[in-house]
Amino acid sequence: MSSQTKFKKDKEIIAEYEAQIKEIRTQLVEQFKCLEQQSESRLQLLQDLQEFFRRKAEIELEYSRSLEKLAERFSSKIRSSREHQFKKDQYLLSPVNCWYLVLHQTRRESRDHATLNDIFMNNVIVRLSQISEDVIRLFKKSKEIGLQMHEELLKVTNELYTVMKTYHMYHAESISAESKLKEAEKQEEKQFNKSGDLSMNLLRHEDRPQRRSSVKKIEKMKEKRQAKYSENKLKCTKARNDYLLNLAATNAAISKYYIHDVSDLIDCCDLGFHASLARTFRTYLSAEYNLETSRHEGLDVIENAVDNLDSRSDKHTVMDMCNQVFCPPLKFEFQPHMGDEVCQVSAQQPVQTELLMRYHQLQSRLATLKIENEEVRKTLDATMQTLQDMLTVEDFDVSDAFQHSRSTESVKSAASETYMSKINIAKRRANQQETEMFYFTKFKEYVNGSNLITKLQAKHDLLKQTLGEGERAECGTTSLFNIILCAFL
Amino acid sequence: MSSQTKFKKDKEIIAEYEAQIKEIRTQLVEQFKCLEQQSESRLQLLQDLQEFFRRKAEIELEYSRSLEKLAERFSSKIRSSREHQFKKDQYLLSPVNCWYLVLHQTRRESRDHATLNDIFMNNVIVRLSQISEDVIRLFKKSKEIGLQMHEELLKVTNELYTVMKTYHMYHAESISAESKLKEAEKQEEKQFNKSGDLSMNLLRHEDRPQRRSSVKKIEKMKEKRQAKYSENKLKCTKARNDYLLNLAATNAAISKYYIHDVSDLIDCCDLGFHASLARTFRTYLSAEYNLETSRHEGLDVIENAVDNLDSRSDKHTVMDMCNQVFCPPLKFEFQPHMGDEVCQVSAQQPVQTELLMRYHQLQSRLATLKIENEEVRKTLDATMQTLQDMLTVEDFDVSDAFQHSRSTESVKSAASETYMSKINIAKRRANQQETEMFYFTKFKEYVNGSNLITKLQAKHDLLKQTLGEGERAECGTTSLFNIILCAFL
Repeated sequence: MSSQTKFKKDKEIIAEYEAQIKEIRTQLVEQFKCLEQQSESRLQLLQDLQEFFRRKAEIELEYSRSLEKLAERFSSKIRSSREHQFKKDQYLLSPVNCWYLVLHQTRRESRDHATLNDIFMNNVIVRLSQISEDVIRLFKKSKEIGLQMHEELLKVTNELYTVMKTYHMYHAESISAESKLKEAEKQEEKQFNKSGDLSMNLLRHEDRPQRRSSVKKIEKMKEKRQAKYSENKLKCTKARNDYLLNLAATNAAISKYYIHDVSDLIDCCDLGFHASLARTFRTYLSAEYNLETSRHEGLDVIENAVDNLDSRSDKHTVMDMCNQVFCPPLKFEFQPHMGDEVCQVSAQQPVQTELLMRYHQLQSRLATLKIENEEVRKTLDATMQTLQDMLTVEDFDVSDAFQHSRSTESVKSAASETYMSKINIAKRRANQQETEMFYFTKFKEYVNGSNLITKLQAKHDLLKQTLGEGERAECGTTSLFNIILCAFL
Repeated sequence: MSSQTKFKKDKEIIAEYEAQIKEIRTQLVEQFKCLEQQSESRLQLLQDLQEFFRRKAEIELEYSRSLEKLAERFSSKIRSSREHQFKKDQYLLSPVNCWYLVLHQTRRESRDHATLNDIFMNNVIVRLSQISEDVIRLFKKSKEIGLQMHEELLKVTNELYTVMKTYHMYHAESISAESKLKEAEKQEEKQFNKSGDLSMNLLRHEDRPQRRSSVKKIEKMKEKRQAKYSENKLKCTKARNDYLLNLAATNAAISKYYIHDVSDLIDCCDLGFHASLARTFRTYLSAEYNLETSRHEGLDVIENAVDNLDSRSDKHTVMDMCNQVFCPPLKFEFQPHMGDEVCQVSAQQPVQTELLMRYHQLQSRLATLKIENEEVRKTLDATMQTLQDMLTVEDFDVSDAFQHSRSTESVKSAASETYMSKINIAKRRANQQETEMFYFTKFKEYVNGSNLITKLQAKHDLLKQTLGEGERAECGTTSLFNIILCAFL
């Protein structure tokens, strides 16, 4: 019965030990699987990124080519037009300058997106494929090191198993030796008890030598068994000590593996992955940021040209360009008839009085006309101001269209915005054209008025000069002209 | 002969006048042509801009769709993968996060370029077509006003022609009257001379009454002619005055037209053109600048994620994710055999001395091993530093590729640059892998060393504890353990 319990106990221990080992082995296998899966995920990610950047590079190239074609279509048109030769340099009008800069920007964008393609294809993708190589190589090397670590662990646990078995064996032997010793001791005690009976029963004297040899024999056996027991007990103690020491070593080794080595193993797999990937992303970012900077510079040049859109300067350019068309003609000269020696207005009597009357009439007519025309001019200026306000309304900010609402992610239509809605456009344009019509009506009125004023003023000035000279000739006398002049000053 | 000169002089004046008028009419016609050409150039420019923006809008839409398709291709792959469900939220690894953000940015770019398309089609082009309408309408209205100005000028010059002709007529009549008067005076003088002869020759007395009536007749005629001459001279003076006054008015009107009205006329044609065009360009610029801002924001988000690429944190995430695989197993426990009551290292004699010897050996072995392994660790750290320097080299700046040399306009190949040239890549990679190999060799060496140290240290510590307890049990006595300990402290 006790032997049965003993063997069961051993079996249980071995079973428990083996279960524990099996669990560790399973974990080690799973750890490799985990590392492998991690590497595979990385390779998949790197492959996705390569595919992504290859396709993005293609898209950038298509975009670049479309932009190049677009710019070239208009640039060649400009080059072939005769106007180009004429308009260039000093005669470049400000809207045409803006247009040329828009085309220039388009070519610049084209080049920049081609550069993006180049960087994606020849830099980003190359880096990604190198990282893939690195991941594969590092996983292999790490697995190699990991296998070595696992072997070491299994070696340690095997050793533990061996010393445990040794301890079991010596302990079993020690128990056996002890029980044999105890048996001998029992026999000795029995013998000793017989000797006690002897002293009480001296009748059987003939048995004594026989008994003495038996006692000796028992003592000898006991000594032998005592020695055997001590020997086995020492062996057992040593085996137990070895077992305990190996147990400590094994637990320390396993603990080290789980706490440090697995982590170091993952580090080996990771070696440089994040850094290399970061450099790849940074290359992509550098390319995109530089594209943006280049774009921004180009847009700033256009914005500057738009700031310099100048109708006044363009008008002068056009007038300079066709200066013979806009150059004022020679004045009409007085053509004296048949040697007529008088070539100035004559203000002598009998026409003097009539001229003075006419001068007077002109002066009063002019005063009235100027007041009237000044009113027209004021209305004209106010209308122009209204028109200018309409024409320079700051309706060009489209930033609302670029507000990405995170919830909807829908593109807001720029056409649906306040300023560019069809109803608003129609309303604004009707309003603008009405104001424009009124402006032109007033402008005609003003031009007519000022034309009349100009002619009358010229006559008035000539008369004033003539009559003034007449007066200077009649120096000292208070002429009618003077009287009239005083009345109007 | 004198009559011939007179008529030629008139013809010359008329011819000169007509030549001057013709020149002005030619200029006026040319001015209209110039304005028309200017308007046509503008319409052409506006048409070119519309075509440009229509095509650019198409290109933006194609680009947007390609980007959308690209992002969707990978997003749907991610959505469909079972890993996605698993990896999301707390288990999102930092490289995967970067990848998701790159896809997010691609979708954002897609939306932004679609918005660009929308703004070009529904805002910029609409504006441009409105400006075209404006140019046509304003040119018509301006031409109308210009025609009125020209009519006014021609009216003024016609008047001048009329008053000049009137002056010529009255001056001619005045000359004729003067010559007739002079003739009468001559006749009177003749008669007067005859009267002188009369006083010397009183013989023909019968002729006297006949002569007296003749003198009277001549005087009467002279008076009549004198009156006619004075009348004509006054008419001529008035006509000349009118001519001179009209001349001044005409010159003033022409001068006003050339100096002010033509300029005003061009202003009428220009009305709002530059302002409206500027608003159109600013709409384009606003769209492009906003696209850029949005891009930049997205890139900043990616850059932030790249800054946060973290292998340590990812390692912990992976270990948390599979925590049952990386969780340290239960310790191996001491399994006492068959009711063995001793479950600790026994350090009593006779094994004490042996254990002390063993302890001593372990201690000295450990000291040597630790020194050796520390050397390995130092080499390992230095090698890791070298590797880190290689892995974090700042080789991602591609701004050189975006430097547009104005002279060549060629795209610099990013692949030809120092860092990414094939020779440099190969050299760097060879160097990196060599260092990596050395690192792994040293790492294995270090792991082996530290594994041994761990096991020996565990045994050493257990012995130290056991022997220390033994000593404490033998309190007061200077044990062999103490002596050995002292020798090593």
